[in-house]
Amino acid sequence: MPTTPQHLQYVLRLADTALILGQRNAEWTGHGPILEEDIALSNMSLDLIGQARLLYQHAAELEKTLTGNTRTEDDYAYFRAEREFANYTLAELPHYGPLAGTAHADKDYAVTIVRNFLFASLMAHLWTALTASTDAQLAAIAAKSIKETRYHMHHSREWLIRLGDGTDESHRRAQAALDYLLPYTREFFSADDVETAISAAGIGPKTAGLEAAWFEDVREALDEATLTLPEPVKHITSGKHGEHSEHMGYVLAEMQSIARQHPGATW
Amino acid sequence: MPTTPQHLQYVLRLADTALILGQRNAEWTGHGPILEEDIALSNMSLDLIGQARLLYQHAAELEKTLTGNTRTEDDYAYFRAEREFANYTLAELPHYGPLAGTAHADKDYAVTIVRNFLFASLMAHLWTALTASTDAQLAAIAAKSIKETRYHMHHSREWLIRLGDGTDESHRRAQAALDYLLPYTREFFSADDVETAISAAGIGPKTAGLEAAWFEDVREALDEATLTLPEPVKHITSGKHGEHSEHMGYVLAEMQSIARQHPGATW
Repeated sequence: MPTTPQHLQYVLRLADTALILGQRNAEWTGHGPILEEDIALSNMSLDLIGQARLLYQHAAELEKTLTGNTRTEDDYAYFRAEREFANYTLAELPHYGPLAGTAHADKDYAVTIVRNFLFASLMAHLWTALTASTDAQLAAIAAKSIKETRYHMHHSREWLIRLGDGTDESHRRAQAALDYLLPYTREFFSADDVETAISAAGIGPKTAGLEAAWFEDVREALDEATLTLPEPVKHITSGKHGEHSEHMGYVLAEMQSIARQHPGATW
Repeated sequence: MPTTPQHLQYVLRLADTALILGQRNAEWTGHGPILEEDIALSNMSLDLIGQARLLYQHAAELEKTLTGNTRTEDDYAYFRAEREFANYTLAELPHYGPLAGTAHADKDYAVTIVRNFLFASLMAHLWTALTASTDAQLAAIAAKSIKETRYHMHHSREWLIRLGDGTDESHRRAQAALDYLLPYTREFFSADDVETAISAAGIGPKTAGLEAAWFEDVREALDEATLTLPEPVKHITSGKHGEHSEHMGYVLAEMQSIARQHPGATW
């Protein structure tokens, strides 16, 4: 199959979002509220980083075909600058969410859960669509990832309901997390030339076409959790175009520092 | 089977060492030198924390029988004080190892690898012996853990050889890590009343009886890695008696802070 820059960019978007969210969720490793949950979250984090690896390996093949450049998964993860990362802004937000800048700015598990639920709910639909991709390699990655993603969705949905329909405090925090995070999901569905190109080539769907199904899943879960859907907002974030929030630099510094201290090291 | 305080203490030693080393290794999650290794180390960390959970659950049953106290795995992990933790001192040391206090005090992957190798080599023998424990529950945990531990040993042995027999710099760092860490292994083999009691009851072996086989495994790997066995030392650390290094408080603060902020929280 002849490839295009948009094709490569699309694969990198998927990879970057998985990597950055995996990295964020890994911040809970060893700091979970309970041991069982600590392990569950860490495993989901490893699933995401594993998906990112497969996607970066595939991106490397596409880039070689396109430009002749030889890059590795580690080059993509550790040696690109902030503007080159194409993850959804949602993935890079810290876990303290709406408490940012207050005296209570500590990791908030409600933010973690609500984000995982909103994102996994999208990916459950997106990976399903991608199993039919004309890019056979991407279809294979989708087939593997869909199983993991369904588990992530199930897990975060259960917790969402437990928090929303729990104590006054857990309800209040889940609602605050939802109010904070939902606006960032607008970015999932905004079209651009990358999506137009890959959709025309049968590589992937127009994400806007998945929105109704996604919204139905979200609304049902919020009902069960006794949470209220926030008012819609107009602003659309643009992490997928490399325009990131002020939080992104910290994530990258944390993730890239060791590899950059020893560039080219074979150990 | 009637139980004893030594029996409970023995299970907690195994659990605490697994938990604290799992916690230490989790510090690499998201900061590994390469993505593949990041995931491998994180998975091994989750194996250790998983072993700790099974052992804590068993300890809770033993404690209930002994004293009537009802404790959970989370109580053991998050709500005991430093002096109550009975892990080997080796497990709690930071990854910067021999570089401590210098301008280069950053995580050193050689320390991580050498520690994992020395410890997994012990556990490969110890879990094997414990599959024959008169404590059927402990024998079952051993049977599950031995498979994971053999993989940990294999993985760290491969890296040990790659580092030792690699560049001048990787050799120098592996040797420094070995010189720093080997003395801490003396604690594996020192007898005490806990071990005397559990050995008499057929619950577990005298660890000193495993030393020759362990040493043979270590010596062979060091030969392959072109590393030199350090001179023996006399001092024996005593983490297993609750006497910890200055590093232990930091590990616990990191691990316990979230759970302690919300004691009794059900989410």
